[in-house]
Amino acid sequence: MLKKSFLSASVALATLASSAAFAVEHIDLLIKDATVLTMNADKAVYENGVVAVSGNKIVAVGDESLSEAYQAKTVLDVDGDIVMPGLINTHTHASMTVFRSLGDDVPDRLHRYIFPLESQLVSRDMVRIGAQLGNVEMLKGGVTTYADMYYFEDEVAKTVDKIGMRAILGETVIRFPVADAANAEEGIQYALNFIKEYKDHPRITPAFAPHAPYTNTTEVLQKITKLSLEHDVPVMIHLAESERENEVIAERSGGKSPVEYMADIGALTPNLVGAHVINVDEHDIALLKKHDVGIAHNMSANIKSAKGVSPALKMFDDGLRIGLGTDGPMSGNTLSTVDEFNQVAKVHKLVNKDRAAMPPIKVIEMATMGAARALHMEDKIGSLETGKLADIIVIDTKAPNMVPMYNPYSALVYSAYASNVKHAIVDGQLLMQERDILTVDEDKVRQEALQFADKVRETVIASGEEVR
Amino acid sequence: MLKKSFLSASVALATLASSAAFAVEHIDLLIKDATVLTMNADKAVYENGVVAVSGNKIVAVGDESLSEAYQAKTVLDVDGDIVMPGLINTHTHASMTVFRSLGDDVPDRLHRYIFPLESQLVSRDMVRIGAQLGNVEMLKGGVTTYADMYYFEDEVAKTVDKIGMRAILGETVIRFPVADAANAEEGIQYALNFIKEYKDHPRITPAFAPHAPYTNTTEVLQKITKLSLEHDVPVMIHLAESERENEVIAERSGGKSPVEYMADIGALTPNLVGAHVINVDEHDIALLKKHDVGIAHNMSANIKSAKGVSPALKMFDDGLRIGLGTDGPMSGNTLSTVDEFNQVAKVHKLVNKDRAAMPPIKVIEMATMGAARALHMEDKIGSLETGKLADIIVIDTKAPNMVPMYNPYSALVYSAYASNVKHAIVDGQLLMQERDILTVDEDKVRQEALQFADKVRETVIASGEEVR
Repeated sequence: MLKKSFLSASVALATLASSAAFAVEHIDLLIKDATVLTMNADKAVYENGVVAVSGNKIVAVGDESLSEAYQAKTVLDVDGDIVMPGLINTHTHASMTVFRSLGDDVPDRLHRYIFPLESQLVSRDMVRIGAQLGNVEMLKGGVTTYADMYYFEDEVAKTVDKIGMRAILGETVIRFPVADAANAEEGIQYALNFIKEYKDHPRITPAFAPHAPYTNTTEVLQKITKLSLEHDVPVMIHLAESERENEVIAERSGGKSPVEYMADIGALTPNLVGAHVINVDEHDIALLKKHDVGIAHNMSANIKSAKGVSPALKMFDDGLRIGLGTDGPMSGNTLSTVDEFNQVAKVHKLVNKDRAAMPPIKVIEMATMGAARALHMEDKIGSLETGKLADIIVIDTKAPNMVPMYNPYSALVYSAYASNVKHAIVDGQLLMQERDILTVDEDKVRQEALQFADKVRETVIASGEEVR
Repeated sequence: MLKKSFLSASVALATLASSAAFAVEHIDLLIKDATVLTMNADKAVYENGVVAVSGNKIVAVGDESLSEAYQAKTVLDVDGDIVMPGLINTHTHASMTVFRSLGDDVPDRLHRYIFPLESQLVSRDMVRIGAQLGNVEMLKGGVTTYADMYYFEDEVAKTVDKIGMRAILGETVIRFPVADAANAEEGIQYALNFIKEYKDHPRITPAFAPHAPYTNTTEVLQKITKLSLEHDVPVMIHLAESERENEVIAERSGGKSPVEYMADIGALTPNLVGAHVINVDEHDIALLKKHDVGIAHNMSANIKSAKGVSPALKMFDDGLRIGLGTDGPMSGNTLSTVDEFNQVAKVHKLVNKDRAAMPPIKVIEMATMGAARALHMEDKIGSLETGKLADIIVIDTKAPNMVPMYNPYSALVYSAYASNVKHAIVDGQLLMQERDILTVDEDKVRQEALQFADKVRETVIASGEEVR
C-alpha cells in the first residue's frame, strides 16, 4: 500500500540504539513528533506525542519516550502537526454527489425536485459513480468512517471496499417504488440479501435504512426492528426532521410526536441511529436516552433548509449518543465534518446567546467519540487508544489559516478547512498521503462524475425544469 | 512578476491567424476557457468566457469570440474554472493573526483579554509580522482588497505594498493609551501623518479608524469627520455592535441608538464604513441609507461571539452599501470571505425561516460589488467590466467538493473552500499562481509568526492567565 515516494520523502527508518537493554517491539507504523489529540476519556493531549500501530490496531499512544520501545517498518515524523482519530460522518447519502449544487434553494425540493429526479436517474451506475466521488471527498476531508443511506448499497459497498474506508451502509426501505425496489417489502428483501453478503466484511457494516417514520408504515417499521435485532445490524432513519413528518405521524398516532410514536411501536432500540432529530422536546430526548438510540447532528443541512437547530447541545450534555454528520451533498453540501465544526460551534452559541456554549472540545468530541457512540462503535473507533482500530488522520498546522496554534481544538473548529487534512490512515493502512489518494484514481472518479452530470442536465431540461 | 514556470507550465502563446483582416490589439493578459462571473449589473455569466487585461485594467470581457481580437503576451487557459472579481474583505484586523485561537471563548474577552494583551505586545514588529501572515492567508483565499483597522498602519502598508494587494488601511483612534498613541489626539496626528505619506499610493488608501462611538468622545468623532472630508479619506468604525456600546451611547445621548447618535453629531457621511451594524432598527437603517454609509457584514464573528445576526439581508434588499467582512482572526477566525459565504447564506435562511432567503447570488454580490460599494470603490473594483482595475481570481472547479457544478453561485457559496482559489491577479499582476504566492516568501512569514507566538505564550503565562 505504501508508495515508494512516501518512504523516501516523508519517512525515515527508525534508528534505535542497538545497545538498548530492553527488547524493542517490532511494529508496522510509528507516528512521532505529533500534537496527539487522543480523545480518550481524559482528553489527553501529547505535545510531542507518539502513536504506534501494528497491523490494523493501535498498540500504544503516549509521549516521546514511547518511541524507544518500538522498531517500526515505517516512521512518520509529522513535525508538530495534529494527529487525531479519523472523523466519523454519522449521516450522508454519498451517491448524491452527482446532483450537488442543483436546485439548491427550490422550495419543497425533496418532493418536487429530488424524488422525481431520483426516479429517473438512480441506477447501479449512478450509485457507484456518486459514491466514488463522495468517498474521495470524504477521505480528503479526514472522514475515515461514514454512515450512508441510499439505494443499491451493494454498489456503495464495492467502492468503500476498494478505497479502503470504513462504513455503515444502510439500504433504503420506503413505501413508494424506487430504483431498486417496487415497495417496502422488496426493499426489506434487498437489504436482507445485502446484509447476508456483507455481514462478515472487516470494514463494512450492512444495515437497514427505513427512509423515515412518515414514509413507511407501522408494520414495516416493526418488521425492520425485529429483523435488525435478529441479524444484529443497525437501523438508520431520518427522525423528527420536518413539519410534514410531524403532521403525518400525529394523524397516524393520535397526536404523538415522531419519537413517541417510534417508542410506542417498539422501534426505538440500541440498533437505531436517528438523523437530524430537530423537533424533539424534553420527553422525546428522555425516550431517546432511555432506549440508547444514536443521533446524527446535521447542522449545516438543517440551517440551509431553514428547518431549525436541533437541541444537540442539550442531548450531548444529557449524555446521549450523538455525533456530527454532513447529510447528503444536495443538503450540506460538502461531505467532510470539518465543514460542520465551525457552524456547529457558532450556531449553538447564537441560539444559546452564549459565546461559551458549545466550546471547541465538545465539537471535536462529537466528531470523534460522540460519533462513534452514535454508531455504537465506540469500542472500536473514535479515539486513539491502545487496542482500538488504527483510523488516524494528520492535520497540516503550517497552512496560514492554522498559524499560530495556541489551542488545537480551537484551531480545528474555528480555523481548519477540510483541505488541511494531510494524511489519512484506515485500519492501519495509509490511504491518503500528502492529499494524494493511494487506492483510487481521482481523475477517473471526477471524469465519470462529470459525464454523469451531463446526463443529469439533459434529464432536468427534458422534464421542463431549469438547471439552476 | 511572472515566474518562468508560469509561462511554461500553464500558458501557451496565443496563436492567431496572421491573415486576419482586422487589426488585433496587443494586450498583456488574456484569460480564456473560463466560467466568467462578471458580477456586472446584469450578472452576465460567460460559459466559455474571456477576460482581456492591459496594464492594470480590464479591457474586455465576453464570450470566446473575443479572443480573436487580441494578441496577448500571456494567455491563461483555465479549462472551465470560475473566473470572478477578486474578493473584497470589508473589515479585518490583519495583524491580530499572531493571537489567533487564543482564549477563544473567554467571556468579556475584548476588555478582559484582548486589550491587556495588546497593551503589552502591540509593536511595529508585531503589526508587521501579523499583517504579513494575514496578507498571505487572504490572498490564498482570494481576497485581493481588504479594509483594515489597527495600530501602526504604516507598517501594514509596507506589507501590502510588498505583496501587491489593494487595501484601505485605517489608523485607530481610541480614548485610552495604546501602543502608537497616548490618547485620541495623538492617534489623530498619527493618522494624519500616515494619510500624508500614503495619499497617492496606487493600491493603498489611508484612512481614519475611530475604534467605536463609545470608545471615543463626541468631539473626537466630529473632528475625525471634518478631517476625513477635508482629506477625502474613509473613516472606518465598529458600529452598533455591542450591548455595552448601546448603554454608553444611550447614557451619553439621552437614550439614542449608536446610529442616531452618530447622525446627530454629523458623523454619518459617505466616507464612513460601519462594521458589524447588528443592533439597528428600521429608523437606524433609514439613516444609514440617507447618509450613504458603507456597511461591513461580519456573520462569522457575530455568531461566534453570540452578539446576534445583523439585518444584513434587509439592508442589502433596501439598497444600502453592504459587503462581507471577516473581522479579525481572534473573532472570525479566518480571513477569507469564502469562509463567510456558507454561514451568511445559511444563517440568514435560519433566522428568516425560509430556505429561499439569501440565495447564493446575493452572497456573491455582497462579496464583490456589494463590498466595493461598501468601501465606495465600485467605480474601480468589484466586477469584471471594461475599464475596471484588473483584480481577478480563478477558482479550481476540479476539487472533489466542487464537482459537479450545475450552478456556479451555489457551488461557490455551499461547497467552496478558501483553498479552492487557484490564481490571484491584482492590478493586472499575477500575485498567486497554482496557490504559490510569487511576491513574498511564505515560509519566512510563517516562521516569523511562530517566533512571535512564543512571545505571546510567555506574556500570557506571565500575566497569570492560562494559554487556552
